Amino acid sequence: MSSTPRASAVDAVTPLVPGVRGNDLFLRACRREPVERPPVWMMRQAGRYLPEYRAVRATSDFLSMVQTPELATEVTLQPVDLLHVDAAIIFSDILVVPQAMGLPLTVDEGVGPVFGETVRSMDAVKRLREVEPRESLDYHLEALRMTRRALDGRVPLIGFAGAPWTLAAYMVEGKGTKQFAVAKKMLFEAPAVAHALLETLAVAVGRFLVAQAEAGAQALQLFDSWAGSLAPAEFRNFALPYLARAAAIARTAGVPLIVFAPGASWALAEIAQATLCDVVGVHWDVEARVARERVEHLPVALQGNLDPTVLYAPPAVIRERTLRMLADFGGRGHIANLGHGILPDIPVEHARTFIDTVREWRAPAGA
Amino acid sequence: MSSTPRASAVDAVTPLVPGVRGNDLFLRACRREPVERPPVWMMRQAGRYLPEYRAVRATSDFLSMVQTPELATEVTLQPVDLLHVDAAIIFSDILVVPQAMGLPLTVDEGVGPVFGETVRSMDAVKRLREVEPRESLDYHLEALRMTRRALDGRVPLIGFAGAPWTLAAYMVEGKGTKQFAVAKKMLFEAPAVAHALLETLAVAVGRFLVAQAEAGAQALQLFDSWAGSLAPAEFRNFALPYLARAAAIARTAGVPLIVFAPGASWALAEIAQATLCDVVGVHWDVEARVARERVEHLPVALQGNLDPTVLYAPPAVIRERTLRMLADFGGRGHIANLGHGILPDIPVEHARTFIDTVREWRAPAGA
Repeated sequence: MSSTPRASAVDAVTPLVPGVRGNDLFLRACRREPVERPPVWMMRQAGRYLPEYRAVRATSDFLSMVQTPELATEVTLQPVDLLHVDAAIIFSDILVVPQAMGLPLTVDEGVGPVFGETVRSMDAVKRLREVEPRESLDYHLEALRMTRRALDGRVPLIGFAGAPWTLAAYMVEGKGTKQFAVAKKMLFEAPAVAHALLETLAVAVGRFLVAQAEAGAQALQLFDSWAGSLAPAEFRNFALPYLARAAAIARTAGVPLIVFAPGASWALAEIAQATLCDVVGVHWDVEARVARERVEHLPVALQGNLDPTVLYAPPAVIRERTLRMLADFGGRGHIANLGHGILPDIPVEHARTFIDTVREWRAPAGA
Repeated sequence: MSSTPRASAVDAVTPLVPGVRGNDLFLRACRREPVERPPVWMMRQAGRYLPEYRAVRATSDFLSMVQTPELATEVTLQPVDLLHVDAAIIFSDILVVPQAMGLPLTVDEGVGPVFGETVRSMDAVKRLREVEPRESLDYHLEALRMTRRALDGRVPLIGFAGAPWTLAAYMVEGKGTKQFAVAKKMLFEAPAVAHALLETLAVAVGRFLVAQAEAGAQALQLFDSWAGSLAPAEFRNFALPYLARAAAIARTAGVPLIVFAPGASWALAEIAQATLCDVVGVHWDVEARVARERVEHLPVALQGNLDPTVLYAPPAVIRERTLRMLADFGGRGHIANLGHGILPDIPVEHARTFIDTVREWRAPAGA
């Protein structure tokens, strides 16, 4: 909305690329172009660890925040303004897609998201509404448009969606669970129902991502948050093909695509190959060196992967661990991030230490 | 106590080794000796999925069962009698060691174990009582002696203990948590306290395992159940050295040692090298083929690793997946097991399908 970028959000150390008024480190790193230092953002950076977020949250329930573009925009901008991250990610929730398909969703503090119905039969899959993002998810697209205007080119804006397996697991269970026993039982007992649900979701998610790019998202991230609930055989059968299907649709939007499947670090190369994504997210459970080796033959950048609990540590430890991570990823084709979402009880100054350490780092000559 | 083995518990297909009256497949597999088929048992096989277990549990709370040798013996024998597994594992709990150190422990259904005190300072570590297993853990040793007599050589008996990091995480938090945030914070903020607690635990656990072998345990397993809560750097710093320390003491007992660290499948080789264990447990999150490759240069057997949720599947699927697992491990130096504890809502017949599939399998010629 403001026609000039706020000074606080301009990364003074980042030279501007002609035609781009702000900091495009993130987009260059997605394309594995040379950068003077890796860009940095944090998964769940618009979140409860920020007092400014809690102030907005105190006036509104979680889903109303997601569905009110002004509020979503406000909290999306907070980490850009306050912590000077190199990318914004739209404030939303992965479960908006099943909700748009007709499942009644409630999110209660302490309980987590709960669907009023479950999807456990072919009939239930067939009853799901086809998602037309411009209708049922327009609040999300409007939040992207508003945020993009408010950012005014300062940093790129990321759109996102949940991956088919993760959404299916929630829809079959009706809520988050420890083992996803009902959902996994379906994979074994009624694989045809599972495949039908996953195919429906893959198309919906892919189209939603394309619509997000059209609304202003400059990069897209797929979150397969429950990938780690599947053994390798099931991951290859029920998660990976639908990640690939959603990604194939999303890639038609022509913006960088990031795929993050925590708990499936063994599959980094398979994910990159199957989805042809630009960036693969790296969970904190794998070393940077190992992650690099797994994809070194592939044209893909890496995003991650500081253990979010390291942000509980004193600043000196955060700095030391962040520097080690940066050195291990090697600078080029790396987007610095946590290896999972930031936790709600992290002190803001600790998050700032992480961000500032990346912003002050320079890759060794010749990297 | 009966002087002849019960017919139902004798594995008719297993030739007897001279001097051993029962089925010693398990011990031979621990030593990577040739076997006509892998032995099979299930982690948490004395558990709630068995109606016979629930019948005992209905008469007693969990900790009283653990601390009453007659009850512990009764449920330890159930899977041997009912499912014909090739090894018994003593019914107990990993938290008996911290309890013996003086932490008041309660286990409530639905809440899980809770300690009445936490250990978060050097003073608290120093206040922990030294564990003399023959005193404070004699109920556990007596259960081993009783079970050993009751088994009468039918199958070997396994003793076990929790690994130092896992026990420390519970003691610092006071209970199980999702992130073990307080415990991990201690690793970063007060590493000296963490190391002191871990060292104390390693010695206590090692001695407890030796005492178990002296009481009749024919093999010993260390469970590092929360290994997966640590990133590789912390695992190497706070878990692995103390696994190694406890193992070094335990190995003086001269019986096979199994080490299982779910969530640290990346570290299979490091665990085998650091602990010099005979068998390394394989979590379900890694393929048998990959696990074998990781340790192929090491003199270690593998135990695992069917995804416990596969037991939700119809019997035909359980059979197919079990056969695939057996073929992938290749027969020699393999102890068939689940890749984590059996879940409480698994139908007994599904567990039986898993066990029977292994019992009927024969390694391909030349394996």
